[in-house]
Amino acid sequence: MVLKNKNIIQAACILYMLFVNSTISAQQPADFVNPIIGTSNYGAAFPGPIAPRGMASISPFNVSGPQNRPLEKDSQWLSNPYVNENTFLTGFSQVNLSGVGCPELGVILLMPTTGEVEIDHLKYGSTYSNEVAKAAYYSVNIDKYKVKGEFTASKRVGVSRFTFPKGQSNVLLNLGVGLTNEEGAMIKVVSNTEIEGMRSVGSFCYNSPEDAYPVYFVAKFSKAADKFGVWKKPAKYNGVEAQWMGYNGKARMMENTIKTVVGDSIGSYFTYKFDKEETVEVKIGISYVSIENARENLAKEVGDKAFETVYKETYDEWNEELSKIAVEGGSKDDKTIFYTALYHTLIHPNTLNDFNGEFPEIKRSKIGKTEGTRYTVFSLWDTYRNLHQLMSLVYPKQQSDMVKSMIQMYDENGWLPKWELNSTETFTMVGDPASIVIADTYLKGIRDFDVQKAYKAMLKGADQMENNPLRPGLKDYIQKGFLTTDNRGPVSTTQEYNISDYAISLLADALGKKADAKRFKTRSLSYRKLFDNKLNLLRPRIANGNWYEPFDPNSGANFEENVGFIEGNAWQYNFMVPHDINGLKRLMGGDKAFSAQLQKIFDSKQFDMANEPDIANPYLFNYVKGEEFKAQENVKRLVREYFQNKPKGLPGNDDTGTMSAWLVYSMMGIYPIVPGEPVYTITAPMFDKVTIKLDPQYYKSDSIVIERQGNPEGKINTIQLNGKPLNTFFISHDNLVNGKTLKVIQN
Amino acid sequence: MVLKNKNIIQAACILYMLFVNSTISAQQPADFVNPIIGTSNYGAAFPGPIAPRGMASISPFNVSGPQNRPLEKDSQWLSNPYVNENTFLTGFSQVNLSGVGCPELGVILLMPTTGEVEIDHLKYGSTYSNEVAKAAYYSVNIDKYKVKGEFTASKRVGVSRFTFPKGQSNVLLNLGVGLTNEEGAMIKVVSNTEIEGMRSVGSFCYNSPEDAYPVYFVAKFSKAADKFGVWKKPAKYNGVEAQWMGYNGKARMMENTIKTVVGDSIGSYFTYKFDKEETVEVKIGISYVSIENARENLAKEVGDKAFETVYKETYDEWNEELSKIAVEGGSKDDKTIFYTALYHTLIHPNTLNDFNGEFPEIKRSKIGKTEGTRYTVFSLWDTYRNLHQLMSLVYPKQQSDMVKSMIQMYDENGWLPKWELNSTETFTMVGDPASIVIADTYLKGIRDFDVQKAYKAMLKGADQMENNPLRPGLKDYIQKGFLTTDNRGPVSTTQEYNISDYAISLLADALGKKADAKRFKTRSLSYRKLFDNKLNLLRPRIANGNWYEPFDPNSGANFEENVGFIEGNAWQYNFMVPHDINGLKRLMGGDKAFSAQLQKIFDSKQFDMANEPDIANPYLFNYVKGEEFKAQENVKRLVREYFQNKPKGLPGNDDTGTMSAWLVYSMMGIYPIVPGEPVYTITAPMFDKVTIKLDPQYYKSDSIVIERQGNPEGKINTIQLNGKPLNTFFISHDNLVNGKTLKVIQN
Repeated sequence: MVLKNKNIIQAACILYMLFVNSTISAQQPADFVNPIIGTSNYGAAFPGPIAPRGMASISPFNVSGPQNRPLEKDSQWLSNPYVNENTFLTGFSQVNLSGVGCPELGVILLMPTTGEVEIDHLKYGSTYSNEVAKAAYYSVNIDKYKVKGEFTASKRVGVSRFTFPKGQSNVLLNLGVGLTNEEGAMIKVVSNTEIEGMRSVGSFCYNSPEDAYPVYFVAKFSKAADKFGVWKKPAKYNGVEAQWMGYNGKARMMENTIKTVVGDSIGSYFTYKFDKEETVEVKIGISYVSIENARENLAKEVGDKAFETVYKETYDEWNEELSKIAVEGGSKDDKTIFYTALYHTLIHPNTLNDFNGEFPEIKRSKIGKTEGTRYTVFSLWDTYRNLHQLMSLVYPKQQSDMVKSMIQMYDENGWLPKWELNSTETFTMVGDPASIVIADTYLKGIRDFDVQKAYKAMLKGADQMENNPLRPGLKDYIQKGFLTTDNRGPVSTTQEYNISDYAISLLADALGKKADAKRFKTRSLSYRKLFDNKLNLLRPRIANGNWYEPFDPNSGANFEENVGFIEGNAWQYNFMVPHDINGLKRLMGGDKAFSAQLQKIFDSKQFDMANEPDIANPYLFNYVKGEEFKAQENVKRLVREYFQNKPKGLPGNDDTGTMSAWLVYSMMGIYPIVPGEPVYTITAPMFDKVTIKLDPQYYKSDSIVIERQGNPEGKINTIQLNGKPLNTFFISHDNLVNGKTLKVIQN
Repeated sequence: MVLKNKNIIQAACILYMLFVNSTISAQQPADFVNPIIGTSNYGAAFPGPIAPRGMASISPFNVSGPQNRPLEKDSQWLSNPYVNENTFLTGFSQVNLSGVGCPELGVILLMPTTGEVEIDHLKYGSTYSNEVAKAAYYSVNIDKYKVKGEFTASKRVGVSRFTFPKGQSNVLLNLGVGLTNEEGAMIKVVSNTEIEGMRSVGSFCYNSPEDAYPVYFVAKFSKAADKFGVWKKPAKYNGVEAQWMGYNGKARMMENTIKTVVGDSIGSYFTYKFDKEETVEVKIGISYVSIENARENLAKEVGDKAFETVYKETYDEWNEELSKIAVEGGSKDDKTIFYTALYHTLIHPNTLNDFNGEFPEIKRSKIGKTEGTRYTVFSLWDTYRNLHQLMSLVYPKQQSDMVKSMIQMYDENGWLPKWELNSTETFTMVGDPASIVIADTYLKGIRDFDVQKAYKAMLKGADQMENNPLRPGLKDYIQKGFLTTDNRGPVSTTQEYNISDYAISLLADALGKKADAKRFKTRSLSYRKLFDNKLNLLRPRIANGNWYEPFDPNSGANFEENVGFIEGNAWQYNFMVPHDINGLKRLMGGDKAFSAQLQKIFDSKQFDMANEPDIANPYLFNYVKGEEFKAQENVKRLVREYFQNKPKGLPGNDDTGTMSAWLVYSMMGIYPIVPGEPVYTITAPMFDKVTIKLDPQYYKSDSIVIERQGNPEGKINTIQLNGKPLNTFFISHDNLVNGKTLKVIQN
């Protein structure tokens, strides 16, 4: 009987294993996410967990300490808390930015250690191994201490689990070290299971230090500490009294105290004595409003939930979001780079408001309250080009809330955002991109926001000639049609203003404001005055209208400062007039000259996949009849060359998802070629079938399908919409979303 | 009719004026308080308002800036926020210590300015004039801005009133500058009428930096600011990034923001635009527990009360306290120095608990709660000698709460206090003085505390040979009878332990613990082993028991470090065996030799009125029959020489009221000559009549009267108690408090 039963159990077991394996093998979109992608080559992504558009996130922090040079945070301009090839880990930061170009956040560093408490991160740091990075989960072994760290996160709470060996174990919370260049923190151990505090961050891109702001937190520990304490390394005191201060400038250990401690270099330690292997979970709630809100975020979002529960919930949330696009065909790596890119587009803009709806208004003069989601981290110079277009198509409710957030900023501040970061306006980069995003959103039929107010805000930015923080040099621009070399990056900035003006003219037209529509349409073409037909390039002019001399079109590659252009040179910016490509063609002398000049950028290696001004260039061959195959070839080549399933698998800074959005679109076979205008251009999809679920709140169709047929390596022969030939490489947003199937046939 | 009425009004007016004048001329005890006394000559008193035993106080702050050198806080060991002869005022500090010997507190600096906001105190500071200092009130003109400042305080709230001229006016709250050497603060403007924050203080006497602790505050303004902001001057950033930080190390102005700012050098400004002369009141509530408690202290103690109301209430409180001793006869100056001294004895120990009873326990591991008053600032090495004896006699309820507070500290910390300051144990000075104070209190009949626990605590301090923070060197002391030169100040410390042991033996006896009584009595005489009868002085011994060589008895005057003694030399300490003066006499060879040696101290200018070890010396002539007149002469001479109605009117540090208590007793004609033993010695009173009201909760008599008769300049001829000759210059506490009249007849 025993034997008989054993057989039955064995059989059941086999069936169960088959079931489990089949579940595992039916990979969900979230299972393809590989957060290690973009963690090298300055991608500036981080491998740790975050919920979709989460406020909190956890990143391993390995950019401090000489062991990590040259990719060490104080040795160069380094904008990420983690670099894949670095070896020296000093903790796990609880708030992080993904894919940005300036060092910021990367603070509130949690670190497990064993043995005596050591508070100097250069001494307590460790090598690490066995990294596992997935959507909503990261784990790693901390070699020096034989501690395993596992991490997950809800929207506003990071959850860390440490498995300690027998003996003395410590959890350090270091508020001194951080990626940000700001200093200053406060900490208070509330009890042997709870810590509260704040850390100053800000001055993004070394700008606006007066806007530095606090991030508040509450940390709850699953096990009561046997001992706890706070440390502070004070600044050195000068003056004759220093002779009486044996402790001058030295770190202080303050045991078992619940007093508030402030300083630049402070932290706390929780210490345990374990008889056997034990785990400690630390849940850290974050808020940009107050410690009370951080505590509420923690309680309401996570409370007593187990690590696995939080992980499961956030994993499910990711899976739901990523499942909005289903892909069929394509290799595992293709799916991995695709879903990881989509994942990267769902990190920023992120949630700013607390669970109770509160958030700091722009300039922090007041605490606001929202019913929906208040979004933050608007790197609009990047994202106006494709990311928001992707949101409008796939996540229109999010895009609507992002537009509402931008309009709220105008209410609070008097201006639309330019590069908004946690309710500070960093004024990084140039141009007036919010108008483009809002117009684009509206013209795509997402209209549940106050468009009249938005329009008023756009006009203010476009027309106020004095004291206009959004559009410096506007007087020259309006009077002369271009910015002169008295301004920073005058050609680039003129182009940016043109693109914005074009978007405004489209919106004006839609709103029935014909005069404005005409006026802004005219303004949008003024870049033409900067076109030097001898060079077939755009070129800066000095104040008297003469060309700037001597002019080297190559100067400005690799982000060098140069006269004329911002983060780029004349080649890279030459085609950045997406709204007037036909006009540009005429300036250049027609299709052939245009095509030749475009090709030259690729041939001369001036093309920079990592920088926004030229990322639409490969698609521009679609404007030349008969040369569309060059768009297909270039796009495919760039995807293969720059986007890969490995740490260096992004071309450079992800720019809060802009590079990733480029990839998502490019692999789907469409691209929003004219920011502000609801139109896509078409290339060969990289999957057999792409199904985009549409949000019924905004769109009539359930979904749209993009299919490919024929030879995947061949040129596009025919494009069909609902079975009928399209006879163009362009399709309007309306036609796309009201269509059923877009079929691309290659031969 | 008009004229007739005018006459009536005139008459009424004259009557009123007469009434007012008579009210004014009938001066109350509080009217004699001159807080300017002790604000020079290192008296370390401050002239601003404080309530009796108040937590909050306001002092003009004039010890920063090169203008104030040499009495500038960073140029020397300076322990006071205000020096009378200094000229450059940089604000009004909201928490202050009175009469201590180390720089501490003197933080949260409020400063009115006009014109553009300037945040550098060296630039915004001003000369000042027209100081008025009274009990509970201080006013001054701030010359540079033509602003009048007036100040009063309740127990936990400082109230400032500024009268501004027309134009832009500012109220600065500077959390950077301070008397303390600690750094670090937090500030948050809550609204245009409220600020909250904290400031780190601690490391008193350059000790125990790890015990640095926060003082929390909430400031409420009577008028809403037109503009407000916060400033921060950050530490300078090092590293390659400094090249991109144009703002590196520079002060930042942050306008109209409600964010939390932390840093070493921070502050806030409230700005007004006034059309005419206007006043702004600022009420600042203090707490050592939390911002919430500071807010509650402010609301419950002061709330919306007018400046005048707060002043009147605190004035009344002072008057009630000071009226416990009524003096008749004596000059106005005599009354002034007397009541100011009594006022100084009622500042420390001061209240630590908040309005709701909460206070930080010792080491800040917990928030405690008290029903009565939790006292703090126990400078016991000073105050065990006379201040607590004065409290037991005149304010026994306060003394009882002080003893209870000390026993609470033992509960929290495992040890009685030594030099406790806002729940940190600074371990400043030597000896084990709490035992003396508790025994003295109990033996005077104040017994509403847990004496058994107190006794247990005393024994722990007296007997625990290892890891005893109160009595380092105890093993040597117990085994050899003295500390050897391996310890700091071995002779002084032996003497201190002897005095404590004597007090313990007295209490043991009273509690029926005969063996302990005997043991500690024996221990209390061990100083005799340090008596070098060749020198007639106490002298240090080295570890093998030999005398320390070479020995210079003069070394150690003026607070020089020396082998053997703490803050003094062999001469100054020679008579500090108050419990065994008869034994000392025998050692010296009898009355004559004793008297000669005592006289030598005065003749050789070794006597230091400003230092505790020898302040009882003038009274020691009472131990030599026929030489009591020398006590009378010396006491009177010292009172006249060192205690005067002027800024330099204290001999040196008031030592939290110890010098003042000496004066109060000396002017009343009695002195508690043996700390721990309920006995007074008698000298000639300096008033015709002194009436001490006794607290019926502790004493049977309503009051005791000390009268003088005959020639005030003559020697004492007869002393009578209740009309009967006393025939001794000593009187027990029981006889005094149960008597009715002590009459001293001089001829």
